[in-house]
Amino acid sequence: MGAREVRRGDDEADRGTLVTPSAEFPPLGPEERAALSRIGERWRAPRGPDELPVDPTLGRNRPGPTPSRFGRLTPIDMFTVEEPDELVAAEPANLPGSRAGRMLTRLRRVLVGPPLSSSAVLYERMRKVVALPILSSDLLSSIAYGPEAMLAVLVLAGSAALGLSLPLAALLVVLMIAVGLSYRQTIPAYPHGAGSYIVASDNLGTTTGLAAAAGLMLDYVLTVSVSIAAGVHAVTSALPGLAPATVPLGVLAIAVLLAGNLRGVRTAGNIFVLPTYAFVVAVLALLVIGYLRAAGRGFTAVPPPTVPAVEGLGLLVVLRAFASGAVSMTGIEAVSNAIPAFRRTEWRNARTTLSWMVAMLVVLFVGLVGLIHLNGLAPRPGETILSQLGRVTFPVGPWYALLQAATALILLLSANTAFNDFPRLLFFMARNGHAPRRFLHLGDRLSFNNGLVALALAAAVIFAAFGGNTEALIPLFAVGVFLAFTLSQAGMVVHWRRHRDRGWRRRLAINAVGAALSGVVLLTAGIGKFAEGAWVVVIAVPLLVLLARRIQRHYATLHHALALHPPPSAGPAPPPSASGSAPGGAPPGPAGSAEGEELPQEVRHLVVVPVARLNRASLRALAYAASLGQPTLAVHIAPEEAESDRFREQWRAWGDHLRLETIVSPYRAVIGPLAHYLEALHATRPELTLTVIVPEVVLRRRWHRPLHSRAEKRLRGALRALPGVVVTSVPVHPPE
Amino acid sequence: MGAREVRRGDDEADRGTLVTPSAEFPPLGPEERAALSRIGERWRAPRGPDELPVDPTLGRNRPGPTPSRFGRLTPIDMFTVEEPDELVAAEPANLPGSRAGRMLTRLRRVLVGPPLSSSAVLYERMRKVVALPILSSDLLSSIAYGPEAMLAVLVLAGSAALGLSLPLAALLVVLMIAVGLSYRQTIPAYPHGAGSYIVASDNLGTTTGLAAAAGLMLDYVLTVSVSIAAGVHAVTSALPGLAPATVPLGVLAIAVLLAGNLRGVRTAGNIFVLPTYAFVVAVLALLVIGYLRAAGRGFTAVPPPTVPAVEGLGLLVVLRAFASGAVSMTGIEAVSNAIPAFRRTEWRNARTTLSWMVAMLVVLFVGLVGLIHLNGLAPRPGETILSQLGRVTFPVGPWYALLQAATALILLLSANTAFNDFPRLLFFMARNGHAPRRFLHLGDRLSFNNGLVALALAAAVIFAAFGGNTEALIPLFAVGVFLAFTLSQAGMVVHWRRHRDRGWRRRLAINAVGAALSGVVLLTAGIGKFAEGAWVVVIAVPLLVLLARRIQRHYATLHHALALHPPPSAGPAPPPSASGSAPGGAPPGPAGSAEGEELPQEVRHLVVVPVARLNRASLRALAYAASLGQPTLAVHIAPEEAESDRFREQWRAWGDHLRLETIVSPYRAVIGPLAHYLEALHATRPELTLTVIVPEVVLRRRWHRPLHSRAEKRLRGALRALPGVVVTSVPVHPPE
Repeated sequence: MGAREVRRGDDEADRGTLVTPSAEFPPLGPEERAALSRIGERWRAPRGPDELPVDPTLGRNRPGPTPSRFGRLTPIDMFTVEEPDELVAAEPANLPGSRAGRMLTRLRRVLVGPPLSSSAVLYERMRKVVALPILSSDLLSSIAYGPEAMLAVLVLAGSAALGLSLPLAALLVVLMIAVGLSYRQTIPAYPHGAGSYIVASDNLGTTTGLAAAAGLMLDYVLTVSVSIAAGVHAVTSALPGLAPATVPLGVLAIAVLLAGNLRGVRTAGNIFVLPTYAFVVAVLALLVIGYLRAAGRGFTAVPPPTVPAVEGLGLLVVLRAFASGAVSMTGIEAVSNAIPAFRRTEWRNARTTLSWMVAMLVVLFVGLVGLIHLNGLAPRPGETILSQLGRVTFPVGPWYALLQAATALILLLSANTAFNDFPRLLFFMARNGHAPRRFLHLGDRLSFNNGLVALALAAAVIFAAFGGNTEALIPLFAVGVFLAFTLSQAGMVVHWRRHRDRGWRRRLAINAVGAALSGVVLLTAGIGKFAEGAWVVVIAVPLLVLLARRIQRHYATLHHALALHPPPSAGPAPPPSASGSAPGGAPPGPAGSAEGEELPQEVRHLVVVPVARLNRASLRALAYAASLGQPTLAVHIAPEEAESDRFREQWRAWGDHLRLETIVSPYRAVIGPLAHYLEALHATRPELTLTVIVPEVVLRRRWHRPLHSRAEKRLRGALRALPGVVVTSVPVHPPE
Repeated sequence: MGAREVRRGDDEADRGTLVTPSAEFPPLGPEERAALSRIGERWRAPRGPDELPVDPTLGRNRPGPTPSRFGRLTPIDMFTVEEPDELVAAEPANLPGSRAGRMLTRLRRVLVGPPLSSSAVLYERMRKVVALPILSSDLLSSIAYGPEAMLAVLVLAGSAALGLSLPLAALLVVLMIAVGLSYRQTIPAYPHGAGSYIVASDNLGTTTGLAAAAGLMLDYVLTVSVSIAAGVHAVTSALPGLAPATVPLGVLAIAVLLAGNLRGVRTAGNIFVLPTYAFVVAVLALLVIGYLRAAGRGFTAVPPPTVPAVEGLGLLVVLRAFASGAVSMTGIEAVSNAIPAFRRTEWRNARTTLSWMVAMLVVLFVGLVGLIHLNGLAPRPGETILSQLGRVTFPVGPWYALLQAATALILLLSANTAFNDFPRLLFFMARNGHAPRRFLHLGDRLSFNNGLVALALAAAVIFAAFGGNTEALIPLFAVGVFLAFTLSQAGMVVHWRRHRDRGWRRRLAINAVGAALSGVVLLTAGIGKFAEGAWVVVIAVPLLVLLARRIQRHYATLHHALALHPPPSAGPAPPPSASGSAPGGAPPGPAGSAEGEELPQEVRHLVVVPVARLNRASLRALAYAASLGQPTLAVHIAPEEAESDRFREQWRAWGDHLRLETIVSPYRAVIGPLAHYLEALHATRPELTLTVIVPEVVLRRRWHRPLHSRAEKRLRGALRALPGVVVTSVPVHPPE
């Protein structure tokens, strides 16, 4: 096969494409590691760290208890010791502390199952026979509407034009095989994820990759709303009484899909095995019976009903019909993103699955188009062409009903492909900083919770906004898909030119054909359907690319600002004027020198305690402040002179243990003058770290909160922007 | 007058009823002061407080600069020294730190004027000639609808019953004089605020006082919406094109009133002087001309138009007519709440103003009822009876239009009385803990901003909810007002029985008559109009009383929990088992012994630094923690074993300066296990104070926030409920 040769030799990159829970914790680069050691060498704590007053391992040396599912363990029992200085948190330690939070978490666990340990990540892989239905439901369900979409365009030019369906179908089969072969080559080349985003980014640059990703993201969201709409429509056609409940039904279906996917890959797969195979069997049975009957007639085609031509049979109509028929191929890319979810050897299993899928697609598509032609069927409003075909082929018996049921079910479930791929795409994007980092997080069932929820939300909003009539969106998503196809295959062309492995010319040629054909479809769909809605994609894709780039820039700026740099004095060539700028590419001093310290001996303290009145809470804050043994200043804001004097008098009664500064605020504001005073203090000695210690009375009941000024919170907000000001809340929990 | 004799001798209570900015800072009681000294005696800081590294007076010894109105001073220039260790904040120190906040504050200042210093509080007092229009607009405007309300009930029994208006008016005059005399007696007895809430609370108990307050609060809110509705209705009657904009116009009028009142007492008064006097002059002119014409006819009454009787002339109709006519008296209580806003001697000026008001009320009311009778007018839909009278009396010339304009204007402005009294009532309630404490705050224009805004919001919501048709609410507020009148005067009866000053029997008799008459009106209005809406008051008053009592209980519980108590060892009789419970009524230990400390030597520290990754932010947090010189422990939560090992390896590269504990969280949650670990640590040594030091990357742009997990915030939330856990945010401000 030569596949092993074309695998990229770069082990580091290979590891990088693995889906692992540690992706949230990227390792330090070699420069940062060196800087870390340099910084560490200069660390001098003002006092050696004392013996800790507690045992950090919580005194655990016995084996941990078995956590009960619904019982509440004492906090200590939630941790077991595995190695010295290393605890392992038991499952109950994940429960939130509040009662409402625990109830919610338990409800979620009833719905999606108990949490899965990180060590289970390797076992949550798919066998091929399971992967096929999971990944192909989208692709195969497309043939339920793809041929019809093509015929619906042709019929505009009159019933005679319907005969063009056969050559167009042949062209589409060429396209399917070309794209299939293309992806067959891509999978071993990118064995840890061969999605369009990765391939296009790698070979054509980030922007191109992001454009492919944006196209796919639109596709996934629309696929969910459209297929749910089609499925719900099939249900309400059978049971018209349910029609008013279209939106709740659709949202419920999306919620069920979400719940199923939150349970994790394997469980989700089990739901989809039967309907997919049932659909395939039903359509195959339709084809066999249908062709047997046609054979009985000697394969003479029934002439289609006479439909008047609305427009002439020009090239544009043919191209639009071709592009419409190409929606039968949406979903073909599902395997390439999902390679890491296969069992070992992942890429080989994925490639085999892809071959099966394309083969099934070609057989079903050609069979259906041919049979429709032989039976002389034309699209008509109110009944799908697949339903017409079913009625003609199965005039009696339950077979027609079974076919319709399987179709409805696979349309509903085809949305699942998007649930498989969308979170994975976001994971890859987030790893490069192109999407919010939370999409890196593997949920407690080892699924990408955040991505799944984001997809479900977006699809549900679109579904509800269109009131469940999302059929109008079908033209939209073909554009997104073929954008991704074209860019991915064009990327592979560049890839082969760069790598020039054995047989690269042949591979390049295959990918080039795929790219060219996909590009034609993209252009046809984009131009032919521009007014029908494709303009949305033309606007949305650049916006998404822009957003991703801005997200990436933010992360990069932040990473640069927070990255470790060697300290100035230990730098390789300390410049004479190294006061402000450190060598080694240190960023400009981050907003005030008080935040530059990385060493304890550099921290100069001033502790400030704002005191409004003398009570247990403020005395506790004062005691806490004084116990730190750092220079401490108390500040009182008084609304008028008289109150200031009264407070000073109380202060003296207490013993005048700390220096007190009172500030009369003649306009009675508290937070503003206090924040400005701290700013002014800071301005006199910018190298000081000001620790503001605020007592915080913790109110347990929510309705009590408006009864208090919550000065602690407002002060924290006012001090946020000041550099070098540390805010410490000393909580007091009144009984109640 | 004997008024000085009846002033309460209790100076402490007198001071307590003064409206002063220091009300937000109540003084310590003698027991608390003693406890404070005892606690202070035992204070031992672990190290003597060092010389402060800064000058807390900011090195100010020169006179402060003159702050420019719109210029931004450097923080240091915002403070001037008045006494040693006492700074005074200049006006710019009140501005918020953020640019948007400063813009908003400046916009507000353009609308309501520059801030007023606390020292101006004495000057913001009203002269009588200004107080009269401010406080009487509500009362006088009532006569625009009071007589009509009475006649509208009488006419139900047919036109013949209209003749009963004269004896009923005589009865109402008796009631007005009785209530007026009652309040004349109350004012010197409660010279710092003689509102029904204070008088009823003082003499009949808290619940009764709160019932009076609830009645008045309903009255004030309804007065605003009703009079704005009447005023807007007068405007839209004249200019029908504006009718669709009723709600925006009303809300705009409320906003204008709010802005005027936020500007402060004196400025608000200036707006109201002219319209009130104009209305009085207009009605007086109407009366003079009207009676001159009637004199020309020899005072023969024109017979009223024949109206068929809808119901028989029973006692109930007469009583309802009496109660309806009594709405002419709403607003009579305005002076009693506003005594502190008068110039010295406050109570004397207030009493004189009250007398003028009642005299004007009686003259206008009697004059109008008589003139209506003489002209044989009856209420009819579409035109107010005052308008009919105006048309009859001023058949030509601009006088009719002027009368209508003055009426519309005073109805609009009568809402202002509520703006004067409502915030003051809330201030008195808040001082007793019966309302949220924020109503104690004097805004930067020396007005009770929070109360004003609350009233405007409530009135605007009611106005908008009823679409500006608030006339239906008129029966509601008579019930609230007369509830307050009755309780206030009944309270005065008790007051005289208790104090028995010179002439107490006469005074008691006057108040008893007032209470009895008000009580009759209250019962009549409550029963006669129960179905028309009075039931709302019957439900709302107890609910408001209940709410106020719950608020008071919360404040009391909290005050008790935070009050200072003498330390156990210095207590007068330390019990042998004084480990948990302190003598002197100390509350049960507030949730964990780690929060009991009031002395620095009692605080035992453990510093815990959660570290997710090693970067500048976390190294700064570690350096900050180590620089405190307390036992320190670093904690890392790893999603899997491999990541934990990698982190430990980095930790060693750094130099292993602090003890590190890693916790593998196999279900990948971070906040939950960390919070439970801290809880478990705390459980092993409950007397420790755990200081959790969290690096916080401060993001300046709002749209960046969803890109981060904001673990600092979530951790703070999870740790809120844990006693003895102090959370410290060490901010890092990345450049951008």
